[in-house]
Amino acid sequence: MNERYSCNAGAGVASGTPGSRGEIIYEGKAKIVYQAESPGEVYMVFKDSATAFDGKKKGTIKGKGYFNAHISSILFKFLEEHGVRTHFIELVDDVTLKTKKLRIFPIEVVVRNVVAGSLSKRTGRPEGEKLPFPVLEFYYKSDELGDPMVNDDHILAFGMATREEVASLREKALKINSLLKPYFADRGLDLIDFKLEFGRVLNYSESGQEVLGEIVLGDEISPDTCRFWDTSTGERLDKDRFRRDLGGVEEAYAEVLRRLGGR
Amino acid sequence: MNERYSCNAGAGVASGTPGSRGEIIYEGKAKIVYQAESPGEVYMVFKDSATAFDGKKKGTIKGKGYFNAHISSILFKFLEEHGVRTHFIELVDDVTLKTKKLRIFPIEVVVRNVVAGSLSKRTGRPEGEKLPFPVLEFYYKSDELGDPMVNDDHILAFGMATREEVASLREKALKINSLLKPYFADRGLDLIDFKLEFGRVLNYSESGQEVLGEIVLGDEISPDTCRFWDTSTGERLDKDRFRRDLGGVEEAYAEVLRRLGGR
Repeated sequence: MNERYSCNAGAGVASGTPGSRGEIIYEGKAKIVYQAESPGEVYMVFKDSATAFDGKKKGTIKGKGYFNAHISSILFKFLEEHGVRTHFIELVDDVTLKTKKLRIFPIEVVVRNVVAGSLSKRTGRPEGEKLPFPVLEFYYKSDELGDPMVNDDHILAFGMATREEVASLREKALKINSLLKPYFADRGLDLIDFKLEFGRVLNYSESGQEVLGEIVLGDEISPDTCRFWDTSTGERLDKDRFRRDLGGVEEAYAEVLRRLGGR
Repeated sequence: MNERYSCNAGAGVASGTPGSRGEIIYEGKAKIVYQAESPGEVYMVFKDSATAFDGKKKGTIKGKGYFNAHISSILFKFLEEHGVRTHFIELVDDVTLKTKKLRIFPIEVVVRNVVAGSLSKRTGRPEGEKLPFPVLEFYYKSDELGDPMVNDDHILAFGMATREEVASLREKALKINSLLKPYFADRGLDLIDFKLEFGRVLNYSESGQEVLGEIVLGDEISPDTCRFWDTSTGERLDKDRFRRDLGGVEEAYAEVLRRLGGR
C-alpha cells in the first residue's frame, strides 16, 4: 500500500503542486494525504482504487479519483456557503484537494433518510423504506474490527469524543443533511444515506506546537460515501454499483458530477 | 419446540398449579410461559435447556430451571423492596414463577460495568477493563436477525418504543444496576454485565379489553442473563462456563444461589 500516487485521470496538474508535496501522512483505501507547504495544510489525492465489505472486495473505478475530487469540491463549497465549516481550501488539480489538517475523530457519522445497505441487513427492514426522521449512527473507525457500530456511551466510555463533541457532531451532521437533501433533490437525486467524518483543525504555534481548533467537516462527500438514487427511475448512482456488480460504475460517478454542474 | 414442560428439578409442586396452567403463550429457549387463572397473570416455567451464540450451541444444564427460578425470585423481591416495580408475584414451585402478564418491549437492555463478551469482541477492548460509568446498550429482540444492536434513533424510527419509554428504560436499568452491583459485591460477586427486558403491565377491563399499564421489569435475572465474576478469584459463575466449555456449569449456578442465601 505504499505505492506512490501517479495521476491517473489525465490531470492537468496545477503549477508546482506535485513537486511541493511533502511526506505521506496517511494512505487509505481511496485517498493519499500529503503534507503541504504550510504545517496546517495537506493535499488529499483521490485514487481510482475502490474497496468494499471491509476491504474483502477490491477493484478500480476508472476516473473515480477525478469524479470524487470534483464532486467533493463542489459540495464542500456549497456547504461552506451555507454556514458549514469544512476542511476544504481549494481544488488544486483534477484529483487533489488542498485542505486544512485535522485531528480526525475516530468516528464515522452515518445519516440515513431511507433504509438501505447494512441497516436493512441488520434490522430486516426493506431497502427503500422511508425513515420518519433522519437516523444517525456512529461507527468506530477501525479496519481490523470492521468499523463496529457504537453508541454514545461507548464513545464517552472509551474516550473517542466528549459529550459536547458528540452533541456537536450530531448537530452538524443533521444540518449537513438538511442542506444536502434538498440540494440533491433539485438535481434529481434522492440522498438515501451518507457517511461523514469530522475533526478538529490542527493549528500550529510559532514554536511548532499543535493547537486544536474548531470542529469541521473532513474527508470527502462523493458516491463512495453517499447513496444516491435517481428520483425518477430509482437507479443507483453510487458505490453500490461496484459493491453489487451492477455495471455502469464509472458512468454513475460521471452522472453525479454532471448533475452537480461539473463534467 | 412444542414439548410439554415436565418438572426436571425434583420440584415439589405447589398444590394445584400444574393442573391450572392454561395454554402456552410463549415458549423460548429457557422458559415456557403459560396463561394463569387470572387473565393478567402467567406462569413462567424455567427449563434446564441452554443455548448460546444465537442458538448455534445447544445443551442442558442440569438444575438450571431450579437455580434460575430461585435466583430470579430472590432478586425480584430484593428489587421490589427497593422501589423497582417488576412483574414478579410469587414463586409457586421450584421451577415456576407467577408473574404479571406484560406487553414486552422488543428491546433487550444491556448494562455493563466491565468490558466482557461481545463488547470486547466488537471494540477490541480487553475483557476485564473497568468502564468509567455503566454503559447501556439496546438490542432489537429478533432471533432471525441475531438480536442486532440498535440506537435510540432506530428504536424511535421503527416504533419499538417512544422517546419517553426509552428514557424510562434507561433510568430503570441504571437504577437496577445501582442496586444490584453493591448487593452482589456484598456476596463476593462482581456484576460485570446483565441483560434486562421490560414491558407494560397488561390489565383487563371487565369486558376483557386489554389496557396497558405501567412499565415494569420482566423476564428473569440469573446467571443466564448476567455475568458474575468471583470478587477474589475472578472465576466466572455464569453462562460463560457453558458458552466457553469451562466445566463446572451446574456448580456455578448453584454457587450463585448459595451466595444469595438460597440453596
